[in-house]
Parts: sequence; C-alpha cells; structure tokens
Amino acid sequence: MFDELHEECGVFGIYEKSACNIAESVYSALFALQHRGQESCGISVCDDGVFSHLKGSGLVGEVFGRDNLKSLGQGRIAIGHVRYSTCGGDNPNNIQPLVIRHINGNLALVHNGNLVNTAALRKSFELSGAIFHGSSDTEAIAYEIVRQRLSCKSTEEAVEKAMCELKGAYSCILMTASKMIVFRDPNGFRPLCIGKTADGAYAAASESCALEAVGASFIRDVRAGEIVVIGEDGIQSITTHCGGKNSICIFEYIYFARPDSVIEGTSVHRARLRSGKILAQTAPIDADIVIGVPDSGLDAALGYSLESGIPYGMGFIKNKYIGRSFIQPSQVQRDNSVKIKLNVIKETVADKRVIMIDDSIVRGTTCARIVRLLREAGAKEVHVRISSPPFVHSCYFGTDIDSEDRLIAHNCRTTAEIAEYIGADTLAYMPVSTLSSLLNDKCFGFCDGCFTGNYPVDVSNAVYKNKFDSKIHG
Amino acid sequence: MFDELHEECGVFGIYEKSACNIAESVYSALFALQHRGQESCGISVCDDGVFSHLKGSGLVGEVFGRDNLKSLGQGRIAIGHVRYSTCGGDNPNNIQPLVIRHINGNLALVHNGNLVNTAALRKSFELSGAIFHGSSDTEAIAYEIVRQRLSCKSTEEAVEKAMCELKGAYSCILMTASKMIVFRDPNGFRPLCIGKTADGAYAAASESCALEAVGASFIRDVRAGEIVVIGEDGIQSITTHCGGKNSICIFEYIYFARPDSVIEGTSVHRARLRSGKILAQTAPIDADIVIGVPDSGLDAALGYSLESGIPYGMGFIKNKYIGRSFIQPSQVQRDNSVKIKLNVIKETVADKRVIMIDDSIVRGTTCARIVRLLREAGAKEVHVRISSPPFVHSCYFGTDIDSEDRLIAHNCRTTAEIAEYIGADTLAYMPVSTLSSLLNDKCFGFCDGCFTGNYPVDVSNAVYKNKFDSKIHG
Amino acid sequence: MFDELHEECGVFGIYEKSACNIAESVYSALFALQHRGQESCGISVCDDGVFSHLKGSGLVGEVFGRDNLKSLGQGRIAIGHVRYSTCGGDNPNNIQPLVIRHINGNLALVHNGNLVNTAALRKSFELSGAIFHGSSDTEAIAYEIVRQRLSCKSTEEAVEKAMCELKGAYSCILMTASKMIVFRDPNGFRPLCIGKTADGAYAAASESCALEAVGASFIRDVRAGEIVVIGEDGIQSITTHCGGKNSICIFEYIYFARPDSVIEGTSVHRARLRSGKILAQTAPIDADIVIGVPDSGLDAALGYSLESGIPYGMGFIKNKYIGRSFIQPSQVQRDNSVKIKLNVIKETVADKRVIMIDDSIVRGTTCARIVRLLREAGAKEVHVRISSPPFVHSCYFGTDIDSEDRLIAHNCRTTAEIAEYIGADTLAYMPVSTLSSLLNDKCFGFCDGCFTGNYPVDVSNAVYKNKFDSKIHG
Amino acid sequence: MFDELHEECGVFGIYEKSACNIAESVYSALFALQHRGQESCGISVCDDGVFSHLKGSGLVGEVFGRDNLKSLGQGRIAIGHVRYSTCGGDNPNNIQPLVIRHINGNLALVHNGNLVNTAALRKSFELSGAIFHGSSDTEAIAYEIVRQRLSCKSTEEAVEKAMCELKGAYSCILMTASKMIVFRDPNGFRPLCIGKTADGAYAAASESCALEAVGASFIRDVRAGEIVVIGEDGIQSITTHCGGKNSICIFEYIYFARPDSVIEGTSVHRARLRSGKILAQTAPIDADIVIGVPDSGLDAALGYSLESGIPYGMGFIKNKYIGRSFIQPSQVQRDNSVKIKLNVIKETVADKRVIMIDDSIVRGTTCARIVRLLREAGAKEVHVRISSPPFVHSCYFGTDIDSEDRLIAHNCRTTAEIAEYIGADTLAYMPVSTLSSLLNDKCFGFCDGCFTGNYPVDVSNAVYKNKFDSKIHG
Repeated sequence: MFDELHEECGVFGIYEKSACNIAESVYSALFALQHRGQESCGISVCDDGVFSHLKGSGLVGEVFGRDNLKSLGQGRIAIGHVRYSTCGGDNPNNIQPLVIRHINGNLALVHNGNLVNTAALRKSFELSGAIFHGSSDTEAIAYEIVRQRLSCKSTEEAVEKAMCELKGAYSCILMTASKMIVFRDPNGFRPLCIGKTADGAYAAASESCALEAVGASFIRDVRAGEIVVIGEDGIQSITTHCGGKNSICIFEYIYFARPDSVIEGTSVHRARLRSGKILAQTAPIDADIVIGVPDSGLDAALGYSLESGIPYGMGFIKNKYIGRSFIQPSQVQRDNSVKIKLNVIKETVADKRVIMIDDSIVRGTTCARIVRLLREAGAKEVHVRISSPPFVHSCYFGTDIDSEDRLIAHNCRTTAEIAEYIGADTLAYMPVSTLSSLLNDKCFGFCDGCFTGNYPVDVSNAVYKNKFDSKIHG
Repeated sequence: MFDELHEECGVFGIYEKSACNIAESVYSALFALQHRGQESCGISVCDDGVFSHLKGSGLVGEVFGRDNLKSLGQGRIAIGHVRYSTCGGDNPNNIQPLVIRHINGNLALVHNGNLVNTAALRKSFELSGAIFHGSSDTEAIAYEIVRQRLSCKSTEEAVEKAMCELKGAYSCILMTASKMIVFRDPNGFRPLCIGKTADGAYAAASESCALEAVGASFIRDVRAGEIVVIGEDGIQSITTHCGGKNSICIFEYIYFARPDSVIEGTSVHRARLRSGKILAQTAPIDADIVIGVPDSGLDAALGYSLESGIPYGMGFIKNKYIGRSFIQPSQVQRDNSVKIKLNVIKETVADKRVIMIDDSIVRGTTCARIVRLLREAGAKEVHVRISSPPFVHSCYFGTDIDSEDRLIAHNCRTTAEIAEYIGADTLAYMPVSTLSSLLNDKCFGFCDGCFTGNYPVDVSNAVYKNKFDSKIHG
Repeated sequence: MFDELHEECGVFGIYEKSACNIAESVYSALFALQHRGQESCGISVCDDGVFSHLKGSGLVGEVFGRDNLKSLGQGRIAIGHVRYSTCGGDNPNNIQPLVIRHINGNLALVHNGNLVNTAALRKSFELSGAIFHGSSDTEAIAYEIVRQRLSCKSTEEAVEKAMCELKGAYSCILMTASKMIVFRDPNGFRPLCIGKTADGAYAAASESCALEAVGASFIRDVRAGEIVVIGEDGIQSITTHCGGKNSICIFEYIYFARPDSVIEGTSVHRARLRSGKILAQTAPIDADIVIGVPDSGLDAALGYSLESGIPYGMGFIKNKYIGRSFIQPSQVQRDNSVKIKLNVIKETVADKRVIMIDDSIVRGTTCARIVRLLREAGAKEVHVRISSPPFVHSCYFGTDIDSEDRLIAHNCRTTAEIAEYIGADTLAYMPVSTLSSLLNDKCFGFCDGCFTGNYPVDVSNAVYKNKFDSKIHG
Repeated sequence: MFDELHEECGVFGIYEKSACNIAESVYSALFALQHRGQESCGISVCDDGVFSHLKGSGLVGEVFGRDNLKSLGQGRIAIGHVRYSTCGGDNPNNIQPLVIRHINGNLALVHNGNLVNTAALRKSFELSGAIFHGSSDTEAIAYEIVRQRLSCKSTEEAVEKAMCELKGAYSCILMTASKMIVFRDPNGFRPLCIGKTADGAYAAASESCALEAVGASFIRDVRAGEIVVIGEDGIQSITTHCGGKNSICIFEYIYFARPDSVIEGTSVHRARLRSGKILAQTAPIDADIVIGVPDSGLDAALGYSLESGIPYGMGFIKNKYIGRSFIQPSQVQRDNSVKIKLNVIKETVADKRVIMIDDSIVRGTTCARIVRLLREAGAKEVHVRISSPPFVHSCYFGTDIDSEDRLIAHNCRTTAEIAEYIGADTLAYMPVSTLSSLLNDKCFGFCDGCFTGNYPVDVSNAVYKNKFDSKIHG
C-alpha cells in the first residue's frame, strides 16, 4: 500500500561465559531489531560444537514460540537474523543464519548488507564445482571463507583473507564451534556494534537498542574493516582492513535505525531532531502547527518546532495492528485504505496552516494521499518538508531503492512539479550539503550515493540483488 | 507484563443500499476498533435473511484472511465485534456476534458494556427453562429481547421493552433479516455513534474512527437511551428511554478511545491535551523536559508542555512488534523485559530533570520499572504526573478494574507513599474536580465511579463479570 | 468423490473411581470410534463440578494434541463425541459435547441419532422464549431435560420425563457434576453399550471396540428405552421406557460399525460373513475369484468364498493416506481419481471371472467406476453382489440417506437396469427377507426402513436434518 | 510404538508434451508412493527453465493444499519425493527435491537409496572448498554431477561420469531446464520404472502404482546401471554402467512396496502369496484358521491358506486414523496402546488354533504384544509364521535396519528362544534358500544382505546414514 523503503537485515550474536538458555536472549534482541526486517528470521545456537537452528518466514513472534525456542537447547554462543527482501527473496534457502557443515568444523553466518561483486564471485565458485542453494550474496561470503579456511590455520585468518575478495557492504557475525567472529566491511556501510553484560557475556548487534534488550552495555562500534574475535581468551581485534573511507549509510539516521540507537557516536534521535532544525533554517514558512508522519517523521517535526517556535502537534494516528496480513480492500474501499492505516486527528489540523514533515518521498503516491487526508480534515495550507534530500539514484549496499525509474525525483521533476503532484502548497527537501551536520564530529564519513550518485566503491559491475532469483522461485 | 487496563469491546454495524462485499467494510472497521479488544473478534453478514458468520480468538488480522472473508459472501447488513476479556473469557461461546436462530427470524447481536443485573436475569431465565451456552451478559440481553419479541409486533418494540429490564452499560447493534437496530443504555456509559457514506449506507460504531475507516461521515452520537432503527424506510429513532442521567465513562477520554475519535462532541485528543494542561496548572514543577509514556501519555505530555512552556521531548520507543505472542523471558532476562517493550531514548533524558506523564497507575509495578529505566538512562529527577485521579474503586460497566485489592491507590496509600514506591521525586494526580473540564459544554455528564465510588446506577447486586465462568472453563 | 453413506456420530463416556488424566482415555476411545464421524469432535471433563471442554473441526488427531489434552486437566467423569454431518453442519455451535451452564448445575451432553420431532420441539421452545445457538436436535434434547429438571428432584428423573417428549433415535450420555447418565431411545435405533475396567471405572460407548480401547470389558448393551445412572453409589437402571419394539439399525451391521464390535450380542464381523454366505446361496454364479471392495466389502467377500468354495482374493489396494484434505484433480486427472483412492491388484483379477462384493449402491457412479477399473485390469467377467437390499427410502434416524431422488434404486430402476448402468455382467442384492438371519437369536428386532419404507416410528412430521441450517451458515 | 522397518524414499518425475498443471500429477503420484516415506515431501516444477519448488515436513496431504499447489504454476517437467528418515533427518535442508542454482543451468534431484561412500565423497568435496547444507548423501550425488558437468558437454554425460564415483544404492530422477534424466545404480538396489500416458507424457517412478495414479501405462523397469534421458527428442538410453550383478532389495517384495506394484516383472502381491505358500510347505502345522497381521501380512496369510487348505480369516482391525500425531497414552493406558492401533476380531479367533502370519520380526516386542492380544481374545494356540528369514545384519542401501544390536535374531537367539519371548506355541521363518522363488524367472538377482550378510558391494567403509547429523541438528 505504501511505497516505503526497506532495510534488508539485522544481525545479532552473543557469547556467554557458560551454557544457558541463550536462544531467549537472541529472541529478545531480534524483537529489538525487527524494524530492520520483517520477512523472515532465524536463530542458531552452538552448544559445545553442536549446532541447532531454527528459521522461518514471518515476524520473530510468529516464527518463535515457547516450544521451539526451548528445542534450541542450551548453548554458549548464538546468532540471529531478521530479514527483509524484495521479490524472489521468499526462497527459504535464503533465510539466515546460513549454517554450513564442514569437515573443518561447522559454521553459521548472519549478514547485513549487499556485495557488489556477487555475480563474479558466484560464477567463479560455480566454475570450480560449487553448488549454491540460495540466491543470496551471503552464501558467496560463506564460500569465500570456507575456501580460504582450507589453507588458513584459523577461521579468523580465513575471514581476513576472504575480506580481500568481498566488495560492498557486509556487517557479519560468524559462529564457529568455539568462537564468535564479528566483521564489518572496510567502508562500514551498515552499522555494527559490540557490548558486554554484567556477567561477562559479549554481544554484537546491528544497533545498540538490541544490546540493551539483552541487558548489555554498549562498548563501541566495530570499526570499518575490523574483525573482532570473541572466544575463550576474551576479545581480540584484527585491523588489517581498517583505514579505508568511512561510509556509514546516512539513511540509517534518517529512516532505518531506531531512534534510541546510537550509531558511530551519534544518537539517531538527535540526528533526526537536527534534520528538522536544518529544515526550519533552510526552508522556513509561516504556519500554525508542525506535525510529523509517523513514525520516522515525528522526531524531525519536533526539531522543526523547536527551531522555528511553531507549535508541535500530533497530526496522525497510525494503526499499530495493521501488518503484513492486512487485506487490501477491493475497489470501492480503496480510497479509504490510507485512512485505515493512518488517520488524521482533525482537532490538530482543522483550520490550520500545517507543516508536515516526512523522512523521504519515493514514488510520491503515498505522500499525495496523506496531503489529501490533511486537506479533507480541514487543513488550510499544507507545507511538506522532507528530512532528506531527493532520492535520485539506486542503492547497492543493502536497501531496496533499486529501480531508479520509479523514483519521482529521478524522473527529471523539479521540486515544484513534485509539490504539485503531491498537492502541497510548498515542498522543500533537506539540502545534500547539510547532511554532514546530522552526525557529530567523531564521524568521519558517510555514504550519500542515493542522493548524489557518488558511491564509495565501484558499482559498475553490481547487479541488482534479485537478479539471481529471476530463474528460480522457491 | 504490564498491569494495563482493558476496555472490553468494540462494536460496528453497516447497512448498505444494495448487496456488496460487505464483510470487507466490517473488517476495515474492526481494524480501527482493535484497540478496544484484542482477544477475539467476529463478523456476521445478512444476505436477504440468510445469516453467515465467522468468529475466532485472536486479532482481526489473525482471524480473518482473504479466503474466509470471501466465504462470508455478499450482503446488505453486517455487524462485527472485537473483544477483550479477563479469565474465563476464552470460552468460544462468548465470542460475538451472538447469532440466534429463532422461529420469528434470525438475530445477531454485538454488545459493548456490562450489565449489573446479569445474575438476576440469568437466574430468572434459567428457572423458566433457558439454556445459557456462554457466560456473557450479552446472552442475557439476547434472551430478554427474544422473550419480549414473542409478544411484540416488531423487533424494535421488543428491544424497547427489553431495555426496561436491562440495568447497566450496553451499547449494542442488533441485526435482523431486514434491519439494523442500534441501541444504547439510558446512561450512555459506552460510546456509540452513527454515520453515513457517500453512497447512502448507514454505519454505527463504538468510535468515530471506525466510521472514517469505511469512508462514512459522522452524523451524530446515539443518545443515551435511544434506539435507532435502520431499515428499508431509512433511519428512525425511538426515544422512550432517553432523558436519564448522561454518564459517559470518563476513562474513554483518558485512555480507552483512540485520540482521533470524537465522543459526545469532544475530541479525545483534545481532552488529553487538556488533562496535561490541567496537570501543569495543578501540579507545576520546574524541569527540563516533559515526556509521555506511549501511547496514551503522549497527548497529555504535549498539553503539559504547551501549558508550562517546558520543552516536549520523545522519551521512549515502544516496540510495536510485541504482541500477545511475546514470550516472557526467564528469570535471568526478566529485568530486561520492560526494556524490550519500552526503551528510553537516552539522548532525550540524560542529565535532565524529567516530567513523565502517564494516564494512570494501577498496581504501580510497571510505573516503578519505567521510572527506574529513566534513572538508569541518566535522568537527574523524575516527576510523575498522572492524567487521571487515583483509581480506588471497581468498574461495573465494561472495563476490567474489578479487584480493588490490587489497586495501589485503594490500599490506603498516600500519594507520597506511592511516589516512594514508584521511585519518583514527586507524584501528582489529576484532581477529580477538574475532570469535567476535559469535556466540552455539550456534554451533560459522565461516570467517574472508579475514582469516586459514586456510580450512576445501583451496583449493590452486581457481580464481577467473570463469576459465571468460575465453574466452567472452555 | 465417492458417494458413500455416513453415520452421524459416536459417543463415549467414562466414570472413574478417582481423579486422573481422564481426557486421555476419551481420546483413545474416540480414535476407536472415528469411523462413525470424521468432521468434528470434542471432549468434556468434569473435575468435582468444574467442567472443561475442548471441541473442534477435524479428526481426533487433528483437534487434540498433547498440550490441549493436558489443558483439560484431571477429572473423574468425562464424555466425548465424534461427528459427521451434511452441509450446514460445519456450524461450530453444533460440535458436541453440548455444554450447558445452569443454575441447577452444569450439564454436558453427547448424542448419536436423530429426532423426528425436532421441528415441533424447537418451535415449542422458541415460542416460550428459548434461544437456539445451533441447528442440531441435540440442543432440543438438552432443552427438554433442562425444562423437566426445573420440576424434578434429580437429573435422571428429568431425563426420564424428557424421554416422553423425544421421538426418534437417540443414544446419549449426559454428564452432571457428579453423575454419568446413559440413555437410549425406546427403539434402540443406534447402538450403546457399557463396560467396566479392572480398576472399577465404568465406561459407555457407541460400540464395544471403544470399550476395549480403554481397557474396559464389555458388560452389556444399554437396553432400548433404558436409563443407566452411574454415580457415587454405583450403577443403577431405570427401565420405565423399556419394552418397546427393538429397532436397531440393520445397516450398523452391514456398513457403519467396526467389524470387531459386538452389537446386541451379534459380532459385526460375523454378520458380514453371513451376508456373504447368504449372497452365495441366493445369487450363486460360476467364477474364478471373489473379491471385496475395501473396507466393508471384505468380510462379506470372505463369507461368499467360504460358502461357495470359490477362492477369496485381494482385489484392491485402498490408499490409506487419502483423507478429507485430498485435492480433487482437475479435469485431465479426473479419470484417474478413483485409481488414486482404490487401485486394482492386476495379478488377482487379470483373465479371471470376478465376483465383486460391496456393501451397498447409493447413486451407482462409484460402483460403475470400480467395475470399469476391474475390466481395465483384465477381468473377463464382473459379477457384482451387494450385501444389503436396494436403498429406496430415506433414513430419519441418524444417517445421511436423506434424498431419495439420488438413490439409483429408488428411481424405478430394475436390478437389470442398474447392472447395465454399472457395467456388471450380473448384479444381485441381498433379499430383504434374509436380513433377520444376520442377527443372532437374542436380537428381537431391527429397523430396515431404508429398504422397506416401514419405519418403527411415525416420520410424517420429520424434517430432513439440515433444514434448520438453510437460513444460517456459520 | 511399533518397531517397524522403514523404507527411506519414493521418487517420481513426469515430462509432458506441453505446459500444464503438472504439479497436480506429481501430487497424485506422491499419494501413491506415500507408504515409502511419511516424514517429508516436495515437488519441483520446471516451466521453460524457471524452477519452482515447494517442500515441507509431513504427509503429502499436509504439505500440499490447493493454494500452494497452484502457486507452483504450469510446467512441462516436474519431479517429486517422499521421504522417511531416522533421527537427524528432520533437518529441513535434507528435504528433497534438492534444487541447485548453477551457472550452467538449474538442476533438481530426487533420490531413493543410500551411498556407501558418502563420507569419502563429502570429505573430498569439502577439502576442495565445497559447502554442504544438509546431511544427506543426495547432496553428494548433486556435487559429483555438477563437478563432472564442468568438463562435459551435456548433463547426461555428467551423470554417466558421476556414476563411476558413486557407490551404493541410488534410484534418481534429475530435472534440468529441458530434460528429465532417470538413472539407477548398477546393482539396481531400489526399484525404478518408466511409463507413458495416452497423450504422450513420460513418467518415472519408484513403483508402478504411481504410474497408474497419473494414468500412465507401465513401459518397463529402468535397468540396473541404466541412464534414461527424456527430452525434446524423445526417450534415449545410456547403458554404459549396465551389466553388473542385479541386486534388487528382496524386502521390497516382502514389505516395502505396495502389493499392486510390479517390480522387475514380479507382482508384489504374487510374491507375498508365494511366501505364504512356501511357509505352508516348509513349516506346516495343524490349525483352525490362518490370519495375517495387517497390512503386509495379509497377502502371505492368504497364500498360506490357499496352500494348506486351512481357512483364511480376518483376525485384526487396524485403526486407519492413527498417524504420526497419535499421542502415546500415559502409563496407565500404555497396555491398551496396541489395542488402539490393532484390535482383534474375537469372533475369528476365539477357541481356535490360530496361525498368524507377519512379514518380519525386528525387536520382537510388538510381535509379543500381538500374540498376547490373540490369547486374550481366546485363541487356544498361536503359531507364528514369518514371511521372511530372520534379520541378522544391517542394511546399507536405503532402509533403517541399521543397528544390529537391537535385532532379536542377531542376538544369538534360537528360533525356539524367540518363540518363547513372543509367547508363540511355534514359530517359523521363511528359509533363505527359498527367497529366489518369490521372484519370477526374468529376475536375475537380488540383495539379501540383511539376512545373510552377503552384500553385493563392499560396505567396509560405509557409515550409518545418520552420522553426519551427529553434530548438527536443525
């Protein structure tokens, strides 16, 4: 119904001092990461070298119940994954963790991100006799590690070697019989951090909110290019691949991540507040009320209000019961379908000049419907402010902005034309030049390729992620 | 996990000009009413006298799918229900609509509220040979109507007669082969309103947000004591029982209803904003930020901020994926369980003096945990403001505040003692005397029995609603 | 796919000396009675006056699992039911046990059979204000008992009075807080027997095979018209209604019951062997092999072989995995659909003159398909022998032979015409005059109304059982 | 409950002239093969190079429904599989068809049998960088074919080369974008045959009963060592590996296969009849009745009766509703559990000297219980005759007789000792020397390794099939 953007994955891992009901911790952490992927999920537990896993399509609360969580047994190490994917991705072989049985020891892998050289990697492996069961680039990462492992004396060394071959975005957690190996691509496209619980367990997660869900305190972000090895001897860092250009995805701050997470030293909530403040500075307008489109527009709206002095209001109620199972009404009902998901609080907007903040515009259809809802509710003026620059390019690093043709801003439209399309009195985007001010001073760089077309790595051979599914559905 | 209060039901009905996929409309409306009951739901469709129905345990999105919605077929009249119930209520015979096969014609009934003379009614019916299949008072209402119908010339007349016998709260929609009869008890404890779509269909709903979900415009509230009959000849009102003391449940405004609903002429959102403003006037305190506990504390927090001038902040992230299926972590994890559901945005509260607004305190355990979360996140002071007076009495009219013993405020505690228990620096409730200012001038009266013990009708013979289930589980 | 006949119900009850996991016993017994009804099932447990029950659509193994069986808890008395029903019967309110909450005590009832005065009873009750939730006659029985109970000093006395009003077939088990009351209509249309376990528990069941499933020894059949009361004081018999014309359904022996059951002193297996012997005497033919259509034709085929001296052979393999969930193939596949369910063992019939025994012919279409399968497998001749007389009349007493129009033998066809329709070289039915020889000397009478139109009770006001569902689906 | 033997798989494939709802045909065929594996199943469809598949745990009727069958779409080629497996086998990655995405084209593979050099093959592949997702030997077969394919000009040539490396039992069907390749190991351990439908489609199946289920006529068995290629140019045979020692599993005739199947020119039903006749000749005894233990003992019992002249009787009713979901009763009930599954028809055996035929004795516990049931039912004498020689050795070729320790006959017991253990008056097995007479003259050889320890291929390096699961559950 809504033309939303989707993150593709969230990863989590935990290494305990002694065997316990470790799957419960992963379960809680995956709930905290659920916003990063709602299509499938999985947990893998290692109990003294014996691996158990459970995966399935659906939300964490749908896939896991008391009985099957218990069936995962006790363990000292466990990893988990939540996943979103576009078409083709319903292949059950793509659900992670990816578990590998190997004569040199079992492995389980979770991955957030997207390689840009998957096609070349797969071809190379297949021409030497490899079999791929799924269509994900995660399987290519696993193959590369296993291949390197044959001539390396440890798994972490194999990861180090493998990283020389992997191009693109990967925030990964690898579980072996005795270690948890956490590694992040040299650009650090996707977030990844580590923490520690009071009783000495180490945890790694896509976002700090998942650390808090298991009672762990945030230690630090994994560095771009770093390999963190957690084992019997404690925690150890391999930094061979560090030192590259930091390129955290700026859209993690604007939309993907949870506001209570802190990424690369910057609070996501604070970044969004600042985006609203910047909009108030760069695109001021006289109005009676500022409202945000839930959920990710709310923080920016508050920032706009604080900066401009225009009162903050609650403009919408988002129906929290509508999930993937919601049935699209038939034609007669179609026009009400936005209202069912998002209803206007008339009290807030009637007879007012309204500033409406949203995080982005993809195709524009949803934004147009929301503006119309506001007008029907009596808003006298609707001024739309977007807390990101216009989307004009694809993303190759783990989000689903893959078809430039459908991006309203890509299609040579001026902001005025888009304003007219969505029915807004005025429209303004956040300027690209202000993006850096979302982050604090500790952050050295970010990727804004979807706004600028300037990608930190060469994407000329990258293939859209669903190409490999074009011939096999499953 | 949380000691929350629960509303017990939401009702909806629609009468179309001609046969259509009417179940789809009810489906959409029930999504809008889902907050009023998440335990079970049902839809009943009348197609030219033939009744089809479908009911089940779970959320609307769990019980209804494309196939079974389609199996309900076409029809001109349909009603639906969402239900919450306390223990015993998982009896499938209690799921509504209650469908009755009768020689004088089939009936289907949905009901929100609670009778106070159910025990006497049931006894009287049973002593004359009646069989009760469920434990609900709704079945008693149906019996009374059917009994009256035997000597009345129309169903509406039977309803009119039946209302003489029914004591307590009931907002009902009754479907016959050719009519939809909407009626509300003479005190109007629970909300009930009617609307009309552009193509002439009439709808009735517990809250106006459900009218909007089906594209209907709000016409007016059903009057306390009124019977509205919708049939081939249009809409007709029977007002025999009108004129009593209006006693809308004040807690509908404070907590139960959706902020975008308008009840008895007062916007729920506006009432909550005003509760925050009143708290700012009656219990001011010097602080750096005002935050609300999601979701129902948010509006009041904004009101407090607007009145006091202290900045409004976003203090919490509520995990929207946690539902009834969430598995309580084991002992080790227990302490994190609040964090999984509700996490603090540290950025907002660290090193600040915080005013935290919530709608009510029931047992106090949850409030205590939330205050502790704020302190762990670095709040220097935590001042709790509650947007309702202290709960000290049971409710007999359709909510689940049924055991006074467990109410922290009932147990002779002073506000200071409660403040200490929950760990707040200061605590203040909304004064009972200010409740009337939540409503606008058009509203003539309300029930505040749970705060004052002054009930609009005699409750001396009322029995807690789950008494009838004490001997039969099912 | 197959035009089979269906029994409508099986009942079971058990009264233990002390509380135990009694639901497990009922579960096992219902597996033994599953052939009497595959559409829905239920169990109700009484633990010192507290009733728990669980019901659902599907087979016993589908509705009950370890967890929900356990949730029924311990108890001393329990009853269970399996049910088949025709269209309309998927109304969940019709699933038994029927549990009734009443001021005079709770009741649960299971019933096998069919009343012929349901319409009159329902009308009478409804005109005095009763509400019917389902469409079954079982609810009418419950109403009658509850009505009588108001002026009786015990439930058994109420049953005794109620039986004066109930006309037709009913083998029932009624559970109260402290007793199990087993009663059977004065004609004894449907079987009902009682047994006792080694440790003193009493059990009642539709068939003796269910007694054996719980380790109980058969004591005796419940007499036609008898009320057996099992309680704290042991077992007691009320015989007020005994002495009428015994009219056990002869088709129980021919088709419905399990061969290992003994009904009214006659082994079902032995009755079927005798039907084959009678056919060998009354319709002899020269042939090479005698085969039976599984499952109910096998015993008669063996009887035919023993009497005629023609070798018995295994002619078919019935696919035991095909259940209600089997999906009918599309047109192309349709012709193979019989083969999937029932395949011929070519080795047995190729180049042979075959005598094929089946229990009955309803519409004739299935029989025709089976004969064709035999010819395709190389049978030189196919002589069909039916171990019952031709169906020409409806049954009003608990089976689903309700539309005379669709009975091939009703439609004025001669046996020769039917033989031609089904493609048999010869066809012979068992003569009506020989039916009595299926039973042993202890059995005083039986109902053969479906063959003769002579019904033991007046059926002039009987309505087909699905009439009450014609206006309400659910 | 019962110590039964299990076959491990059934395979099916079909190649149509033009695209159609081909999954429906596979669905029907899998129902016919369900007796060969009840644990999981799957279907893979090829539509012009695009592969769709669906797999799951459970029976065919549980995994497949109308909707998901339809979702497989149209196609010209399709294969399917049913599977039984011992512990460890619940790994979802082991469910077949195994679908492989490869740069040289997609493949899907189904396999019945067991390799004896799996461990060596896996080790060799893993040491060259391969990843195994499951624990099955089927994945090793796929790897070998893919490896050979890299240097071969066609898939059939790759299969031909791969067969040089594969040791043990494999009856396989491989689907490519345009061909169906059917191949069988040089010993032909497991059955495999091909057929053709009236409209020109080719089918291949483990047993001929599956050909009949889709309306195909049996053409011939696939030869031991043969590769049959079905494609655009019709059917073609590669016989490079033919000419070895034929070693069809003799237990296919005795127990595994369906009686209506014909394998290597011998009707399974006829082989069983002959086993009974041989027992009558080699182990005659004076008795009143011969009965078989359902289902596989029935045919042999009839053969014994025909040869000995002692009447054939129906001794047992097997409950056809008890499946995998049946819940074992608790201790009190345990003794009745055999009765629930298998009940004696007392009429048949009371006061008689009974000859009871069963196909085999594994541990002896079940046989002992059945003999006890017969004595409780009044049998005066019980003479057990087993239609196979004693089990004394493991099977390495696709059945689950893998632990010699638990075989009652392996443990140095004499037949007299076993007779005493099971409580039989006399006991006799079928002599090994008579096994060849089960088959007709066209069959050149068979494997009787489980009776004799003489295996057709070297098993010294074979590993029990579940070894690879010992470290990973999933």
